[in-house]
Amino acid sequence: MNKIVIINGPNLNLLGKREKTIYGEISFEEYLLDLKSKFQIIEIEYFQSNSEVEIINKIHDCNDSNIGIIINPGAYGHTSLAIADAITSVNSACVEVHISNVYAREVFRHHSMISSKCIGTISGFGLLSYQLGIEALLNRNV
Amino acid sequence: MNKIVIINGPNLNLLGKREKTIYGEISFEEYLLDLKSKFQIIEIEYFQSNSEVEIINKIHDCNDSNIGIIINPGAYGHTSLAIADAITSVNSACVEVHISNVYAREVFRHHSMISSKCIGTISGFGLLSYQLGIEALLNRNV
Amino acid sequence: MNKIVIINGPNLNLLGKREKTIYGEISFEEYLLDLKSKFQIIEIEYFQSNSEVEIINKIHDCNDSNIGIIINPGAYGHTSLAIADAITSVNSACVEVHISNVYAREVFRHHSMISSKCIGTISGFGLLSYQLGIEALLNRNV
Amino acid sequence: MNKIVIINGPNLNLLGKREKTIYGEISFEEYLLDLKSKFQIIEIEYFQSNSEVEIINKIHDCNDSNIGIIINPGAYGHTSLAIADAITSVNSACVEVHISNVYAREVFRHHSMISSKCIGTISGFGLLSYQLGIEALLNRNV
Amino acid sequence: MNKIVIINGPNLNLLGKREKTIYGEISFEEYLLDLKSKFQIIEIEYFQSNSEVEIINKIHDCNDSNIGIIINPGAYGHTSLAIADAITSVNSACVEVHISNVYAREVFRHHSMISSKCIGTISGFGLLSYQLGIEALLNRNV
Amino acid sequence: MNKIVIINGPNLNLLGKREKTIYGEISFEEYLLDLKSKFQIIEIEYFQSNSEVEIINKIHDCNDSNIGIIINPGAYGHTSLAIADAITSVNSACVEVHISNVYAREVFRHHSMISSKCIGTISGFGLLSYQLGIEALLNRNV
Amino acid sequence: MNKIVIINGPNLNLLGKREKTIYGEISFEEYLLDLKSKFQIIEIEYFQSNSEVEIINKIHDCNDSNIGIIINPGAYGHTSLAIADAITSVNSACVEVHISNVYAREVFRHHSMISSKCIGTISGFGLLSYQLGIEALLNRNV
Amino acid sequence: MNKIVIINGPNLNLLGKREKTIYGEISFEEYLLDLKSKFQIIEIEYFQSNSEVEIINKIHDCNDSNIGIIINPGAYGHTSLAIADAITSVNSACVEVHISNVYAREVFRHHSMISSKCIGTISGFGLLSYQLGIEALLNRNV
Amino acid sequence: MNKIVIINGPNLNLLGKREKTIYGEISFEEYLLDLKSKFQIIEIEYFQSNSEVEIINKIHDCNDSNIGIIINPGAYGHTSLAIADAITSVNSACVEVHISNVYAREVFRHHSMISSKCIGTISGFGLLSYQLGIEALLNRNV
Amino acid sequence: MNKIVIINGPNLNLLGKREKTIYGEISFEEYLLDLKSKFQIIEIEYFQSNSEVEIINKIHDCNDSNIGIIINPGAYGHTSLAIADAITSVNSACVEVHISNVYAREVFRHHSMISSKCIGTISGFGLLSYQLGIEALLNRNV
Amino acid sequence: MNKIVIINGPNLNLLGKREKTIYGEISFEEYLLDLKSKFQIIEIEYFQSNSEVEIINKIHDCNDSNIGIIINPGAYGHTSLAIADAITSVNSACVEVHISNVYAREVFRHHSMISSKCIGTISGFGLLSYQLGIEALLNRNV
Amino acid sequence: MNKIVIINGPNLNLLGKREKTIYGEISFEEYLLDLKSKFQIIEIEYFQSNSEVEIINKIHDCNDSNIGIIINPGAYGHTSLAIADAITSVNSACVEVHISNVYAREVFRHHSMISSKCIGTISGFGLLSYQLGIEALLNRNV
Repeated sequence: MNKIVIINGPNLNLLGKREKTIYGEISFEEYLLDLKSKFQIIEIEYFQSNSEVEIINKIHDCNDSNIGIIINPGAYGHTSLAIADAITSVNSACVEVHISNVYAREVFRHHSMISSKCIGTISGFGLLSYQLGIEALLNRNV
Repeated sequence: MNKIVIINGPNLNLLGKREKTIYGEISFEEYLLDLKSKFQIIEIEYFQSNSEVEIINKIHDCNDSNIGIIINPGAYGHTSLAIADAITSVNSACVEVHISNVYAREVFRHHSMISSKCIGTISGFGLLSYQLGIEALLNRNV
Repeated sequence: MNKIVIINGPNLNLLGKREKTIYGEISFEEYLLDLKSKFQIIEIEYFQSNSEVEIINKIHDCNDSNIGIIINPGAYGHTSLAIADAITSVNSACVEVHISNVYAREVFRHHSMISSKCIGTISGFGLLSYQLGIEALLNRNV
Repeated sequence: MNKIVIINGPNLNLLGKREKTIYGEISFEEYLLDLKSKFQIIEIEYFQSNSEVEIINKIHDCNDSNIGIIINPGAYGHTSLAIADAITSVNSACVEVHISNVYAREVFRHHSMISSKCIGTISGFGLLSYQLGIEALLNRNV
Repeated sequence: MNKIVIINGPNLNLLGKREKTIYGEISFEEYLLDLKSKFQIIEIEYFQSNSEVEIINKIHDCNDSNIGIIINPGAYGHTSLAIADAITSVNSACVEVHISNVYAREVFRHHSMISSKCIGTISGFGLLSYQLGIEALLNRNV
Repeated sequence: MNKIVIINGPNLNLLGKREKTIYGEISFEEYLLDLKSKFQIIEIEYFQSNSEVEIINKIHDCNDSNIGIIINPGAYGHTSLAIADAITSVNSACVEVHISNVYAREVFRHHSMISSKCIGTISGFGLLSYQLGIEALLNRNV
Repeated sequence: MNKIVIINGPNLNLLGKREKTIYGEISFEEYLLDLKSKFQIIEIEYFQSNSEVEIINKIHDCNDSNIGIIINPGAYGHTSLAIADAITSVNSACVEVHISNVYAREVFRHHSMISSKCIGTISGFGLLSYQLGIEALLNRNV
Repeated sequence: MNKIVIINGPNLNLLGKREKTIYGEISFEEYLLDLKSKFQIIEIEYFQSNSEVEIINKIHDCNDSNIGIIINPGAYGHTSLAIADAITSVNSACVEVHISNVYAREVFRHHSMISSKCIGTISGFGLLSYQLGIEALLNRNV
Repeated sequence: MNKIVIINGPNLNLLGKREKTIYGEISFEEYLLDLKSKFQIIEIEYFQSNSEVEIINKIHDCNDSNIGIIINPGAYGHTSLAIADAITSVNSACVEVHISNVYAREVFRHHSMISSKCIGTISGFGLLSYQLGIEALLNRNV
Repeated sequence: MNKIVIINGPNLNLLGKREKTIYGEISFEEYLLDLKSKFQIIEIEYFQSNSEVEIINKIHDCNDSNIGIIINPGAYGHTSLAIADAITSVNSACVEVHISNVYAREVFRHHSMISSKCIGTISGFGLLSYQLGIEALLNRNV
Repeated sequence: MNKIVIINGPNLNLLGKREKTIYGEISFEEYLLDLKSKFQIIEIEYFQSNSEVEIINKIHDCNDSNIGIIINPGAYGHTSLAIADAITSVNSACVEVHISNVYAREVFRHHSMISSKCIGTISGFGLLSYQLGIEALLNRNV
Repeated sequence: MNKIVIINGPNLNLLGKREKTIYGEISFEEYLLDLKSKFQIIEIEYFQSNSEVEIINKIHDCNDSNIGIIINPGAYGHTSLAIADAITSVNSACVEVHISNVYAREVFRHHSMISSKCIGTISGFGLLSYQLGIEALLNRNV
């Protein structure tokens, strides 16, 4: 594995700009700098979209066993069978992450359509969830 | 945080002894040595029990904000409201981990009674899930 | 409040062009002229899209407490958790409207994922629902 | 249409007397004066009862196409099939209103047995919901 | 058995006055004359109320093994556990009748809370259902 | 209407032979003599079968608006969509009867697949249910 | 607290008069004398009604923090959201009591709509449940 | 009855030590002294365990019609069919008590597997629930 | 009918490129040549998109009774009410096709939101499903 | 494949004789002549039965990989697990067809017990569904 | 007991002829010889039918307390209420057997409509299940 | 197979001591003597516990393909996923037995979490169920 693509789903462009008491003061772009400095041995690409189709297309583009995917599907994780099918159709390893503990929120957020298509899920550790996801991808290949 | 207690639930004493094609060749005791060498700055205690009550009592014993809990509840995670209540009643931070991706197994394993009582959940990365859980506990306090 | 944005969801571009016996003879564009003449004291912007992501982005753009949103989510109201999250993430007041009485139609149209995120809901009064929605926004601030 | 009958269901006689932080300081009788001054061109009758049968009988009495009904059924809206049948059996136009946004409250309040029998529903705008309901009745006939 | 009490529930006072294409042109009072002439050997009392409590009280009054009850509970048949309990608490034989075939209408009308408390049910034969109910009461004692 | 066909479904051939404390001492054949003497103005044919297909075929044979059908479907009433379709496909009037009060028995007996396809249902009056069914058929045409 | 109002719901006027093997030989009025002699330090008022609206109105009348309510809602406890709302809207402490163990009866009696609105529930001890309810009200204020 | 055994289930050993704002400042052991002084005429034994099997065994030990059981099953009340079976298999009278009003908490706490096996249930009165339970046991035998 | 538009939904751009053991070796573009040579008498247009909105817009464009639509909605067939509404709003005849037998796959793929809006459904015959769909459209007009 | 057996289930013997506005004017026997002339290269056998057992036996008789089955199970498709098992137990290829679009009819007709046991399903094209089914069988082997 | 009747339901005539890897190489007729030689002290009759009605009739014929029934209902066990009623209506002791472990197969095979009508159930031991069933019948009478 | 371990779950230590009209007069220890004399060729060990963890540990101890397990899980069979997992994790053959016909008791006893993990299930034959279980284990290996 020589590249990791982080895909953030709908409304996550507002991170650090809204609801700061919940999500903290820093934007994902700022956090990305930290991540990149922590994992200098690997290329990290960042992609955010509110669009289901753009996320599907991005997953198609990642179709390479040397690429790992970290996906925070946001609300689409609970409704999009098409994203789940996209993950199945590529041969990249994919890890699902969530900033908040979705199991402690509304019942309809407990079910994720994509969890069963990913290697594993990391949920509830704030932005740290992304770092743990990258470590999971890097260490499983060692 | 100066101590981490790893609690493994029912049937996990058989790790490395049974169903090796699924769970691998090494026992948790062997893996524990690796974990301890990776995290020498902190005390790591290991506890396994097939008994619901012993797990509840162990959680009671951990009641100290300087102690972090990593719990793999095994089958009790899906049925034990009493363990969930125990986690709620202590003030240690608790992380739930699973070796396999429970969301890709039988439906009754998708629901965990304790997820909402923990900080977060890490599922599907094999024994690596424990290491990620410890990192999650250590980094959130920094 | 000095501006109101009306957002119409999928298939509502066909208003006045198809199924006239149900939806009447006039297009929303024609009706908009009436609305603007009735509420000359406030700016009214109209936006229609069949695209979930464009609706989400439009809601993000409205993020201003001086802007009120009137949204007829069409079919997305019953399926889009992402639009519901978008409404939650902005601080504009939002009113949900429906042309037909959705509670008198198929069962799957009775549930709206966005109702609980809006101030209130107005359903069943034809195009008049939009006018009532604007009055609701204007009068609640008085 | 030359007369409008406002029917308030159980516990709404306590408006302005209890739970003032939720429902405000004024009673419905006071608000009624405002309503009457706003709509002087039409007769407005007010009726409140905690009794299911009195509400049914009142609806029977309204059986005249020149009478419009504004009904806030309170808790009976979620349980009374008999009131729903009464609305069906008269030829007055009927509008359902709610002071609070019922879709943001307990799940059992999301379903109304009478919504499908009314022209439309207005929910969540406080006492303003009644005014919007009257406008809905008056304007649909023009 | 020397007396039969016919109890009609909510909205049935409108029989013959509304929705004539469904329920026919004659009121229950007119039909009652026919019934009385058909069954001159027995006293027939008629009682209609839109009130759940009056129906309960009437059932209490009928508590006599020489009295038979014919009840068309209307909408209360689908919602009133209290009427069901009242039927259980008296020792009169009770027959449930419905004018329309409730099993061919909306799903929530398929379930009756009182059917299991009555001797039997007759549904779907128009006003004839009442006559059949009386015959059922008279013949079962012979 | 000049002929009535009584169709009894599975296990009803055992009437009067088994479980006499429940179903009484007389067989349906004996009761049939009574029925015929009560209704001498009309031809009555009796048909019993434990076979779903024979019941379907018999219904097909009855396809004549001068024939009325009394059907006690027994257990097939709760499971056979094919018998329900057969009733729909002929233009004879059909009445469903049950000897016992099915609504006072096990839950799975509360639902009948054929009730909505019949004119009406008579349940709970013992063998008298058949007599009431014939009267229902004869009187509705008068 | 200087007064306690006991409210008995539908069909409880028949206590001691019907189904004596279940409910015993004495009426509630007789039992009330015992209760009053046991608790002479406090005023006890008794109210029974088969009417949902009269029960709601009585609860409204009790709106005084010096009044405690003991309510046996009978069948209305399982169906009346309006009574539940009434309890919420007054500031008297309310205790729910049941003569029989409702959890050992039919499934639909297991759920009470008012339990969550009361301080607590006492179920299954016969008439003794009322005495325990009064003690609960008196002792919690000491 | 000459002896009462109070059985407290999982996590109740923490009473008075944790979550004091909810459960108060005193431990059950302190409260027990009060109870014993209130009921000096009878022996009171106290037993607490976090273990399902120890609770089952304790119930077996109580098998004597002169012994009454007060059980607060904690979380096991919602999940343990084995404890319910144990209660059924002994001939001691058993009363279920809860400190908090379980019907006002999470939905999964509304259902108790043991309620139908006990004489009755007392829920919501704090530690007073135990005192009321003892009175219930003592008075029913008088 | 003089034109047929084939619409393929999300992930179907990967046909012949991925999961070849399931979907075969040829891409849809190659198969399209075969189809066109088989049906030379009619114009065939092909459209694929991973985007829900583009599919909705394409359906709007097809609004002509001389155009027939063959749609393989992929995962959107199970989740998109908006596409179902779009099909309803145009007057082209529409046929739903699936390459695999969706009824032999996961349960959530058994339900299609668009089936009831189409003339008919063809499922399970591989790419042949498209050819059968075209024949269905052509022959029904003869 | 050198032979095709068409199996029609219950009530389909009435095709062309009843409900002509729905099913058209021609019987299946007449349509069969058309089918045979269209597919002269293969033997076509026709079998209709209202009997579940005769359909099962016919499927057993078809047990030959050179025989293809076209089955319209009628109402049995929604209820007969035994027919589904029979299809599984033979090695003939089987196609399910329906004349009407079952997904646009009552909910209980949406589920077919045999779909998952067949190669594929064709639903909604009238008698043309049979022709398409034969083409599906013939072309898949080429 | 002097006679045992073994009843095999639908598709079991194919035992030993199809799906040999699952069901083994020998037919039931061959196995029957073994059974008869093992239990020479009792008459054993064998009956197989794919027909629900023939199974019902056979059960009726067995109505003798000296006859024991071993029934493998096949697919009818999951759907036939009529067979369950037939077992109830005779006074022979009946044992249900299954060759495979039905609880380890599809969910709809977990429920048997006849289990509650039989003495007991034996499932999962291959043909040995029949032998165990006979022993169960013979030994319970000793 | 040279050893069989019989494991009895919670409350089964009371066999022959309680509820004798249901379970008979003899204890399991007495019955064990009979079993041992019937099967002298094999070692039989007996283990009873009310403790879930002791049962899990005992199953772990039996992990030897020469050992067969007969388990009557009592109430744990309906709730313990951990016991089910234990059975899966050892390579002993396991048979589930029940003394009573669990399918004729309360609904929550119809589902067993361990049935799918065992070879087969024997239910309803009293203590004879154990003997049949041993025969099933012994004969399947011959």
